[in-house]
Amino acid sequence: MSERTAGFRASGVVTLTTDFGLKDPFVGVLKGQVLVRFPEARLVDLTHEIEAHWPAEAGFWLARSYRYFPRGTVHVAVVDPGVGSARAIAAVVAEGHAFLAPDNGLLAPVLESSQAPVSRRVTDEVLRRIGVGAVSATFHGRDIFAPLAAELAAGRLVPGELGPEVDDLVPGWLDEPVVTGSQVAGSVVTIDHFGNLITNLEARHVRHLAAASVRVAGHEVPLRRTYTDVRPGEYLALLNAFGVIEIARAERSAAEGLGLARGAPVVVFTKRA
Amino acid sequence: MSERTAGFRASGVVTLTTDFGLKDPFVGVLKGQVLVRFPEARLVDLTHEIEAHWPAEAGFWLARSYRYFPRGTVHVAVVDPGVGSARAIAAVVAEGHAFLAPDNGLLAPVLESSQAPVSRRVTDEVLRRIGVGAVSATFHGRDIFAPLAAELAAGRLVPGELGPEVDDLVPGWLDEPVVTGSQVAGSVVTIDHFGNLITNLEARHVRHLAAASVRVAGHEVPLRRTYTDVRPGEYLALLNAFGVIEIARAERSAAEGLGLARGAPVVVFTKRA
Amino acid sequence: MSERTAGFRASGVVTLTTDFGLKDPFVGVLKGQVLVRFPEARLVDLTHEIEAHWPAEAGFWLARSYRYFPRGTVHVAVVDPGVGSARAIAAVVAEGHAFLAPDNGLLAPVLESSQAPVSRRVTDEVLRRIGVGAVSATFHGRDIFAPLAAELAAGRLVPGELGPEVDDLVPGWLDEPVVTGSQVAGSVVTIDHFGNLITNLEARHVRHLAAASVRVAGHEVPLRRTYTDVRPGEYLALLNAFGVIEIARAERSAAEGLGLARGAPVVVFTKRA
Repeated sequence: MSERTAGFRASGVVTLTTDFGLKDPFVGVLKGQVLVRFPEARLVDLTHEIEAHWPAEAGFWLARSYRYFPRGTVHVAVVDPGVGSARAIAAVVAEGHAFLAPDNGLLAPVLESSQAPVSRRVTDEVLRRIGVGAVSATFHGRDIFAPLAAELAAGRLVPGELGPEVDDLVPGWLDEPVVTGSQVAGSVVTIDHFGNLITNLEARHVRHLAAASVRVAGHEVPLRRTYTDVRPGEYLALLNAFGVIEIARAERSAAEGLGLARGAPVVVFTKRA
Repeated sequence: MSERTAGFRASGVVTLTTDFGLKDPFVGVLKGQVLVRFPEARLVDLTHEIEAHWPAEAGFWLARSYRYFPRGTVHVAVVDPGVGSARAIAAVVAEGHAFLAPDNGLLAPVLESSQAPVSRRVTDEVLRRIGVGAVSATFHGRDIFAPLAAELAAGRLVPGELGPEVDDLVPGWLDEPVVTGSQVAGSVVTIDHFGNLITNLEARHVRHLAAASVRVAGHEVPLRRTYTDVRPGEYLALLNAFGVIEIARAERSAAEGLGLARGAPVVVFTKRA
Repeated sequence: MSERTAGFRASGVVTLTTDFGLKDPFVGVLKGQVLVRFPEARLVDLTHEIEAHWPAEAGFWLARSYRYFPRGTVHVAVVDPGVGSARAIAAVVAEGHAFLAPDNGLLAPVLESSQAPVSRRVTDEVLRRIGVGAVSATFHGRDIFAPLAAELAAGRLVPGELGPEVDDLVPGWLDEPVVTGSQVAGSVVTIDHFGNLITNLEARHVRHLAAASVRVAGHEVPLRRTYTDVRPGEYLALLNAFGVIEIARAERSAAEGLGLARGAPVVVFTKRA
C-alpha cells in the first residue's frame, strides 16, 4: 500500500450513488444498516436516479463529484444488474477518498481520472470478519455495501484490509472521444434535470481547437462561457462546472428542443472563416 | 407495559414515511419541527412517494423495513386522508422500535408481523403536556407527529406515557393471500422503481409448494433465486430481499411488459409434470 | 447592525431550496462543499423541485416555511437563471434566520412577510476573505453559496460582515391580490404533490369577507376547514397550513380535475343569498 493511499483517514462522511430511485424504502434501509453499525455516520445522497442498470452514468458523475467532499469520505455506488451472480465487489482508494461498487466497470472513470488510485477486490474473508452473514440474492446494497461502508467510515476497517491489490477491475463502458486535427467527436452521456446534454468531451480534448464551435443534431451551436451569454431560447455549448462540454438552451430544455437522448453524437470543431 | 416494550430506549434516529412527495417543502418543515425540539435527531427518509392517500402501502414497507434500523428508532408514518377529522393517533412499540401514525390501518402490517407489539392511542393530555398548541386542520405531520417524534427520540417522553394500551386500532387494508392445497392466490401490493411487481405473498405462504411456479396476467413465470438466473428481457418470480414474492423482468420493467398495476392477481402453484 | 439582527446566532442547521432536481449530483456536491468547511452542519432539504428558473416559487415557499426551523438556521436558495452574469448575491437576516440567494427577486416574499428584515449584498471582498477562489460560470450553488452558508452556519462569519446594508434588492415576481369590497382576486402560484392549487391569497386578504366562497375555472367551490369536510371527489377551498387559500379535491387531484396550472385566476367572494 503506497504512502498516498495510506492517507485515507475516515472523515465519517458516506455518499450514496444508486439507481434505486426514491419511490421505495431501498435507500432508507441501506442507510439504516449503516447507522446500526456507525450511528455517527454523516450520509449524503449523491443521486439515486442513475439510469437503471447503467453503471457508466454512476461512474461518470462520481469521478467528477468526489473531490467536492471531505478527504476521508467513503463513496458507495450501487448500480448492480449482476446482483446475486458471481460478480465481485471492487474497492478503490484515490486521492484520500475510498470507493465501493460492484466490479462491473462502474469505477473505471474514477480510476482513469485520479492520481495513483489503488484497486482491490473485497474478499469473502473480510465480509465474514465484519459479521456479514445471511446475504439476500437481490439487495447487496443493504446486505454487503452498507456494512462495509460503515466499518470503513467508522475507521474500524482500513482499505488495505479489504483484499489484495488488483489491476484488472472490469473496464468501463464509455467510449473515449475520437480526436483528429481539427475536430473531436464524442457523445451525450446523460441529460440533466434542466435538459442540458452532458457529453464525454473534456477540456483536455478540445483545448487545442481555436475558435471552436459544436455540431449536434445537424445544428451548429456556439461555444460560450455561461447561459446568459445567449438570449433565452437560444442554444449554446459550454465547458460546464464539472469540466465537460454540455449543450444547453438558455432557460429551456435542449434535450426537448433537439429531440436528443443519451448516446447522441456531438462534434467540436474549429471554425474556419 | 411488558418488559419487552419497556425495552424501547431512544437511539436518536427518526425515520419518515409519507405520501408528501418531494416537490413541496412539506417534508422539510416536518424535519424542521423535529430539529427545533431535538437538534441532535438523525433523520432518515424511508420514502415520501407512498401512493397518495393509501396507508396500506406505507404499512407494508414499514413492517418489512424497520428492523434494518437501530433499536430505539422512532418511525413516523403519515399517510393521512382523514387529517383534521376525529381520527386518532396510533402509537406502537414493537421489538424495541416505536411507531407513530394516524389510526387508519397504516400500522396493521407492523402489528401482524412483530413479536408482542403494544398499541396505544395518543391522548390530548400528552399533546398539551409537550406543548402542542395551535394545530392546523391539514398538516398534522408538522404540527403533531413531528413534536411527538422529537420528544420520543430525545428520550424526554417514553411510549408508556403516550396513552392507555388499546387492542382495537383500525384494521389493515390488505387482503390476506388465500392458501389452498396446491396453490396460493395473492395480489400486487406495489410496483417498485425498477418496475418489479411486489406482492403480498410471503415465504411462509409458499414454503409447502414443491417445484413452484407463478401465474400472472396469463403468463407462467419460473420461480428463481435472482435476476441473473434468466436472460435479460425474460420474466421471473423470486422471493425478494424483503421476504415477499416479486415478479421481475431481467434488466427491464415487468410492470410495463405485462401492463399490470397494483391489485393484479398473482398465483403461486405447484407444477405437475 | 440592529440589535434584532445581531440576534442571529448560528444553530448549525442549513436548509437548501433549489431547482436542481434530484436526478443529478448537483445537490450532493453542494452539500459536500458545506461539509468540507463545516463537518457538523445539519443539512435539510426544503425542496429541490422548484420550477426550473422560477425564483418566485422558491421565495413563496421559503417565506412560509422558515419559521418552522430553529432560530439561527441558514437558508440557502439557489434558483438562478442569471448564474455567471453580473447579478449580485443577496443576504437577508429576518427574525433570527439568515437567507442567501441570488439577487433576482427570490427573497422578496421573505422581506415582505418578516419583521424588520435587514438586507445586504455580498461583497467580493468577503468571498476572497473566506477563500472562495476559482468560481465556475454555471454552478455558484457549489462554488459560492455553499462556502458562504458553511461559514455562517459555523459561526465563523456573521451576517453583518457580508456586505453593506441595502434597501434595493431586486423586487419580487408575484402580483399582489386585488382586493375590492366584496371580493378578492388572486392566482395559483404552484400546484402541490397532491394536485392542490396553492394561491397567493392569504388570510388577511379574505378575513373581511362573510360567508365566503371561491370561484375558479367557472366552478364555485365552498370554503371549508379541512379535506374531510366534503365527500371524496368533491372540490373545496381552504385556508391551508401555510396560511394561504388552496383549492383541493378530497382524495383526488384538483389540478387534474379542473385542468388548471400556475397562474390561473382564483376569486374569493361573499355569497349573497
